Amino acid sequence: MTDLVPFSRRHIGATAEEQRRMLETVGYTSVDELMDAAIPDVIRDHTPLDLPPAATEAETLAELRAIAAANRPMVSMIGLGYYGTHTPPVIRRNVFENPAWYTAYTPYQPEISQGRLEALLNFQTVISDLTGLATANSSLLDEATAAAEAMTLARRASKAKSDVYVVDADVLPQSLEVIRTRAEPLGIEVRVVDVDADGLPAEFFGLHLQYPGASGAVRDHEALVAAAHEKGALVTVAADLLALCLLREPGAIGADAAVGSAQRFGVPLGNGGPHAGYLAVRAGLERMLPGRLVGVSRDADGNPAYRLALQTREQHIRREKATSNICTAQVLLAVLASMYAVYHGPDGLHGIAARTHRTATRLATALRVGGITLAHEHFFDTVTAVVPGLATEVVEAAAARGINLRRVDADRVGIACDETTTEDHLRLVLDAFGVTVDGFGDSLESLPEGLRRCTDYLTHPVFHSHRSETALLRYLRRLADKDFALDRGMIPLGSCTMKLNATAEMEPVSWPGFADVHPFAPKDQVDGYERLISTLEAWLAELTGYDAVSVQPNAGSQGELAGLLAIRAFHLANGDDHRDVCLIPQSAHGTNAASAVMAGMRVVVVATDDDGNVDLTDLDRKIEAHRERLSAIMVTYPSTHGVYEAGIAELCAKVHDAGGQVYVDGANLNALLGYARPGRFGADVSHLNLHKTFCIPHGGGGPGVGPVAVRAHLADYLPGRGVGAVSAAPHGSAGILPISWAYIRMMGPDGLTRATGAAVLAANYVAARLREHYPVLYAGAKGLVAHECILDLRGITKATGVTVDDVAKRLIDYGFHAPTMSFPVAGTLMVEPTESEDLAELDRFCAAMIAIRSEIAQVATGVWPKDDNPLANAPHTAEAVTADEWPHAYPRSVAAYPAGGDRSAKYWPPVRRIDGGYGDRNLVCSCPAPEAFES
Amino acid sequence: MTDLVPFSRRHIGATAEEQRRMLETVGYTSVDELMDAAIPDVIRDHTPLDLPPAATEAETLAELRAIAAANRPMVSMIGLGYYGTHTPPVIRRNVFENPAWYTAYTPYQPEISQGRLEALLNFQTVISDLTGLATANSSLLDEATAAAEAMTLARRASKAKSDVYVVDADVLPQSLEVIRTRAEPLGIEVRVVDVDADGLPAEFFGLHLQYPGASGAVRDHEALVAAAHEKGALVTVAADLLALCLLREPGAIGADAAVGSAQRFGVPLGNGGPHAGYLAVRAGLERMLPGRLVGVSRDADGNPAYRLALQTREQHIRREKATSNICTAQVLLAVLASMYAVYHGPDGLHGIAARTHRTATRLATALRVGGITLAHEHFFDTVTAVVPGLATEVVEAAAARGINLRRVDADRVGIACDETTTEDHLRLVLDAFGVTVDGFGDSLESLPEGLRRCTDYLTHPVFHSHRSETALLRYLRRLADKDFALDRGMIPLGSCTMKLNATAEMEPVSWPGFADVHPFAPKDQVDGYERLISTLEAWLAELTGYDAVSVQPNAGSQGELAGLLAIRAFHLANGDDHRDVCLIPQSAHGTNAASAVMAGMRVVVVATDDDGNVDLTDLDRKIEAHRERLSAIMVTYPSTHGVYEAGIAELCAKVHDAGGQVYVDGANLNALLGYARPGRFGADVSHLNLHKTFCIPHGGGGPGVGPVAVRAHLADYLPGRGVGAVSAAPHGSAGILPISWAYIRMMGPDGLTRATGAAVLAANYVAARLREHYPVLYAGAKGLVAHECILDLRGITKATGVTVDDVAKRLIDYGFHAPTMSFPVAGTLMVEPTESEDLAELDRFCAAMIAIRSEIAQVATGVWPKDDNPLANAPHTAEAVTADEWPHAYPRSVAAYPAGGDRSAKYWPPVRRIDGGYGDRNLVCSCPAPEAFES
Repeated sequence: MTDLVPFSRRHIGATAEEQRRMLETVGYTSVDELMDAAIPDVIRDHTPLDLPPAATEAETLAELRAIAAANRPMVSMIGLGYYGTHTPPVIRRNVFENPAWYTAYTPYQPEISQGRLEALLNFQTVISDLTGLATANSSLLDEATAAAEAMTLARRASKAKSDVYVVDADVLPQSLEVIRTRAEPLGIEVRVVDVDADGLPAEFFGLHLQYPGASGAVRDHEALVAAAHEKGALVTVAADLLALCLLREPGAIGADAAVGSAQRFGVPLGNGGPHAGYLAVRAGLERMLPGRLVGVSRDADGNPAYRLALQTREQHIRREKATSNICTAQVLLAVLASMYAVYHGPDGLHGIAARTHRTATRLATALRVGGITLAHEHFFDTVTAVVPGLATEVVEAAAARGINLRRVDADRVGIACDETTTEDHLRLVLDAFGVTVDGFGDSLESLPEGLRRCTDYLTHPVFHSHRSETALLRYLRRLADKDFALDRGMIPLGSCTMKLNATAEMEPVSWPGFADVHPFAPKDQVDGYERLISTLEAWLAELTGYDAVSVQPNAGSQGELAGLLAIRAFHLANGDDHRDVCLIPQSAHGTNAASAVMAGMRVVVVATDDDGNVDLTDLDRKIEAHRERLSAIMVTYPSTHGVYEAGIAELCAKVHDAGGQVYVDGANLNALLGYARPGRFGADVSHLNLHKTFCIPHGGGGPGVGPVAVRAHLADYLPGRGVGAVSAAPHGSAGILPISWAYIRMMGPDGLTRATGAAVLAANYVAARLREHYPVLYAGAKGLVAHECILDLRGITKATGVTVDDVAKRLIDYGFHAPTMSFPVAGTLMVEPTESEDLAELDRFCAAMIAIRSEIAQVATGVWPKDDNPLANAPHTAEAVTADEWPHAYPRSVAAYPAGGDRSAKYWPPVRRIDGGYGDRNLVCSCPAPEAFES
Repeated sequence: MTDLVPFSRRHIGATAEEQRRMLETVGYTSVDELMDAAIPDVIRDHTPLDLPPAATEAETLAELRAIAAANRPMVSMIGLGYYGTHTPPVIRRNVFENPAWYTAYTPYQPEISQGRLEALLNFQTVISDLTGLATANSSLLDEATAAAEAMTLARRASKAKSDVYVVDADVLPQSLEVIRTRAEPLGIEVRVVDVDADGLPAEFFGLHLQYPGASGAVRDHEALVAAAHEKGALVTVAADLLALCLLREPGAIGADAAVGSAQRFGVPLGNGGPHAGYLAVRAGLERMLPGRLVGVSRDADGNPAYRLALQTREQHIRREKATSNICTAQVLLAVLASMYAVYHGPDGLHGIAARTHRTATRLATALRVGGITLAHEHFFDTVTAVVPGLATEVVEAAAARGINLRRVDADRVGIACDETTTEDHLRLVLDAFGVTVDGFGDSLESLPEGLRRCTDYLTHPVFHSHRSETALLRYLRRLADKDFALDRGMIPLGSCTMKLNATAEMEPVSWPGFADVHPFAPKDQVDGYERLISTLEAWLAELTGYDAVSVQPNAGSQGELAGLLAIRAFHLANGDDHRDVCLIPQSAHGTNAASAVMAGMRVVVVATDDDGNVDLTDLDRKIEAHRERLSAIMVTYPSTHGVYEAGIAELCAKVHDAGGQVYVDGANLNALLGYARPGRFGADVSHLNLHKTFCIPHGGGGPGVGPVAVRAHLADYLPGRGVGAVSAAPHGSAGILPISWAYIRMMGPDGLTRATGAAVLAANYVAARLREHYPVLYAGAKGLVAHECILDLRGITKATGVTVDDVAKRLIDYGFHAPTMSFPVAGTLMVEPTESEDLAELDRFCAAMIAIRSEIAQVATGVWPKDDNPLANAPHTAEAVTADEWPHAYPRSVAAYPAGGDRSAKYWPPVRRIDGGYGDRNLVCSCPAPEAFES
């Protein structure tokens, strides 16, 4: 019964015959031989992986159906920032389940990302309008991490000379926990205060208020905000977006910042995520915003065009001077939430909010009539019932009726209503309280008079034009068509591993058994998730050679922080509280340094030698200089230069000898899987990027998942164990873990190993084909690269004026996403083809790069002027090439269909090259008036 | 708890405010007033519809989940033409669940249909290669109707003077039943013969062989074929496509035709359909093929381009001279099956076939070892076990183990293996037989030596280039991007009702509870389907005013035939065997006449008056002339002219008075729902088109579903009751009935009624806006049209030379699918906007039509030459407009971005205007060599 095509043959692009031809070009006879040459013996691990053998797609889907069936999604009235919501099916199918959206990369190349940038600008407009604050970023990881980011922003912006951060006692518990985790290494004192009862302390730099509170209480914070401002403190209001459709907006009561989650705008619960967190700030603070901000700029023709404003990304982050290590956003989820708002419009959202509120008031009335005391008079959607000594009983009675309530403590039960709550649900809840009602009459509004919202929101036409399913469907299609994602062609991004996101991996994510589970659902309802997560953590540990893994960090940046916090806690537990120096090689991702600072460490840079390797002599020097204070070294392996450094084992030994811990950034794990395991070649901790090596799609710029993996001596310091939580939900973005689970299950140990070989072969094939046209920077001992290669354009730029930007934008005309530009070395392009591209696509890319080299030669020889050639003017829109006037020195056909390009893969960008600086100078971060687009 | 946005507000495009503005243009103050004016009082039905009130999308999906859960899909080893198969997830998501594929219309406008035409050409190549026959059409409805079509083809082509059609006794029972249904009215005698045992009769015009037989037996038919040919008979081989990967092809043994189903090439079982049936013929018969045939032609630039060859469509069918009433194909399913072949390639298909065969041989060996006798020595995937007196017991024992087998009779059990069969399944089957095995060794092949296939198949590069999921994903995207479907813009096709296919309607179709059910599964496993179907039939009866409905007909054409067969049976039962005249108005769809002939009737045409109405005086004359022989009249209501004819009630009465029955074609039911019911205003029978009024997507040219609805006196003559089956499966295309069920459930009686009003308003709005630019042909008493309007271009063409073709093709440049061309009146365009378009899209269409009228004026005034203007050269490809030379009399910008067009809706067709005649003269109906595309 064998003979079924294994999934690995679908995942890996090149067939055996294609690989044979590629090996010939590279000069090896087999992948084994190539890998033996490429990977240093010292790290090579020949122990067979203890993983189940590969299952077929059908078998894996059947197993996941069984796992999903072991979850028992109930009606969730737990609240605490996670609510039942109806994902409009048209959005589910055409965004959440559409590869044009979910396989897109982060919009760093804005010309091919106008669709998702528009959707994100819509998101920012939703947040900005609803919070009443000037500028919102286009998503953070969740409400809790957004709250922590707001805290550090307040610290930077506040003039108060205090390390005290005041948090209202009615905060969401998970937000408080993450705030505490993040405050501790930074020396911030978190003070939890019942602000209404006890007032504010004398000195503090910031104040976090929950609006409505975790208890459901809606309170007027205006006076508190004013009082805090008088102390020079900044105020963050953590606000529920749906409540803001009825309640006075944070901006109107004077808040400096607002944070929250867009989950209940149509995003499935997914046992905690991924959802889009948000952070909005008042005018004057926009340049301090962490995360990504979309802005409006203009293109070469002067037309409006979107792009990331005030861009922060790992390689742009200012290392240890960075104020946040945030890279990934939750783009796919922000798009979902924004489309929910586009589809419903302000009237629809107001209607949903009003209905939700009315549901809660009916419940409250019925409870009161039934003799139950409520904790608060004013609420939006959540009431807290006071049932002395009976809370457990009531919660269990409700669960027996298929409804989850929140057990606040022994005496109090929280009940949160949402757009999915029906009268039947209310009856069951009342039944659990022993209350019966005849019917539900009209109920009085329970919002405080002074807090009723009196300003408009979502007045932009985009929130008024897509009211029918047909109209929304077409809007989604038009936006998707503007973008270039993996479903159109290769995205050869160095260090980002844009491999296949297989459908069989993606399908389970939509199933109710995974999608409709609340993160705080009782354990006996989530057997499926427990099984899925424990298996996945065990598999990841086996693959990386570590002893324990936590999937809680919901992005690589959080995984990094969690790993460093584990190291920190380890040293502290050993009494080594002086160990605070983190060594970081020059070539490292900027995130590394930013994370180290967030973990309370001091960064010391280690030099890189001419070959791009860590300079071991300099390492000795730095260890010597900081031996007593040495906490850790953070290295990426293979290096960010795309090279397997032979000295890695020696490096680890040196650091260990000095009492330090070794952190290996797992960004490049795709070049190791099945061949070497960081946990076995000397590292103590790594974070992984499930969206790189383990197939979680990039989603246009998130979600990511960044599990942290540690050796046994650090296992007690994983997040939620010995250190605080780094994400709001216990298992982070649990809802998408089926993707990585399915990938490992379908590849099996052999398939995963073959994928690594195929990825390294592809990178070396591209290097071999392009070497005579562009110098290839850095290589290992045998002249081989790892899974990516760096093409050096510096000489070309010097000689011709043609820049990496020009080449990157010209690749768009050829139907490609550009490689990574100027990272890790300015003036270069880094190419990572991954294992999923077949030979035809690799050759199409090489042909395009070679054709572009000929075009550069025409500039060099003066055939085309330096300021008017297809490179300088790239990319070319259809409108530009079909214009009646053609003033250029090269023919239209060259602009549109370059020689060496593949006409069948033609992609037309919607805008010409974008002037980023213009947008930064004229910051516009919400939807521009339609007149802006008139031509 | 009200206040949720009702689904009808998502389904209906125009908001209340937009409708108000549209009414103003049309000259009415409310939709009610408009409808009162438009619909004749005599048919107006004010009885409230007895349907459940509208449910929300979420409620409906929950109800359908419960219904799906009431089905218990088991492992199916029943066989009989329906097999377990793995739909590759990448194909499921990106074709079956992708609106770019499923909302496309039939590819009558080939310039905007190149993607699906390529996919269909791949399908034809698969069929032609595997059957070894020269030409295959691009799908019929199922194997049984394909077999019936092959029978009538044989009768036309055979020179034998006989009415006898010989059918091998090992035929699929459902094919035999449909062959019998179709033979009887045509005077064909079907003779079932055990051809191996009893030989052939002396005279017959055709022979139907099953290969492998229903029993699983594989026999060598070569000598029989030769013997049949000697008698002047044609031979059809009904062949299993997977078996043909290993077995000698029908063409090689001399077959004239082959029929079958492509279901097991990745198409879900769906309780019987929809699946693509196929029909392939030897050279010389291609011009007799019924159904659609895709061929290669060339465009205005001489580039290869696909289009329908030898086009047959309802309005092209030669009425009573037609040889088939087939219109709809099963395009979406043919695309699925073709992509399964593209993805697996010949090696993959061979591997699946070999594995399936090996599974069957292992089972056979184990059964024999266990002492069970098998009925045949040679088989491919199905063995028949001989268990005297124990068949029921064995089948029940297997069912108890989760496996369905086929109870052939009291003594025999059929067991069919397929690609999904595992060793575990075999063990359970053996267990049901009381046989235990230790393991499964290698087994000998059980194919007869002389029948092993020795020819190649699928040698075209397309079957060798998409082996990775990434490659296939991109191929699917590129094909989809070539096409224009409802997800891009309006498809204003007269009489085709291209309305919204909502996601909530579509999602359930993919659920295993609906998708994985065999059509012959035991009744106790299909409670869900029984509930779904009986409810849907009851709702359709209520909506149409009839007493009984059958959803069995799997296309409108089959529904028509079923309705006429019911009338025929009714007359025969009354002893009126002379009643064989069918009156058909001049304006009728050609299909009507074709169906009448197939039902054994003679067609008599009734004239149409100048206003487009049935000429009641001529009707009197014709009734008088044929009073004694009058069987029926077939009319469409509203008429094919898009008018509510006031005389309909009178017409019905006249025919009834003469003893005839009234058949109302339900094609235009979208203009009646909630306002009038054919079963109450005089009709006796109708067929409906669920893909028109009830939201089953057109799928690029199928599937359709054509239920037949009758009044009580005809209820005993519905298919499968008093007359034979018209489709292979008992409930036809049951797998897609959840779509229409969901539509009715979500709209409720009020929503359905509002949709009708919105559709009529939209048509009258377009007519009002365009009337001053193009004459509007035909209208009712008050100057109103029904749900569609006819724009008369004949005067314009006469004056300027600009044809309907020119306007239709120019609309592509504006980003629209053309309206229906030259039906029902040559030289006109028929526009049906449907209720799902919003005012913005209606206005965009009107603006384009008005702008085109200005362009026509420029031709008229000589600004542009008659042979070189944007209309004559339309559509314009990007390649043409970006070419270095621009030899035209109008600027490029006018070609690319016409004034009045919406740039954001720009669609670039992949080819220029196609020369259909060239392709018909040079017929190429399988994949052309890649060199053909070199430019």
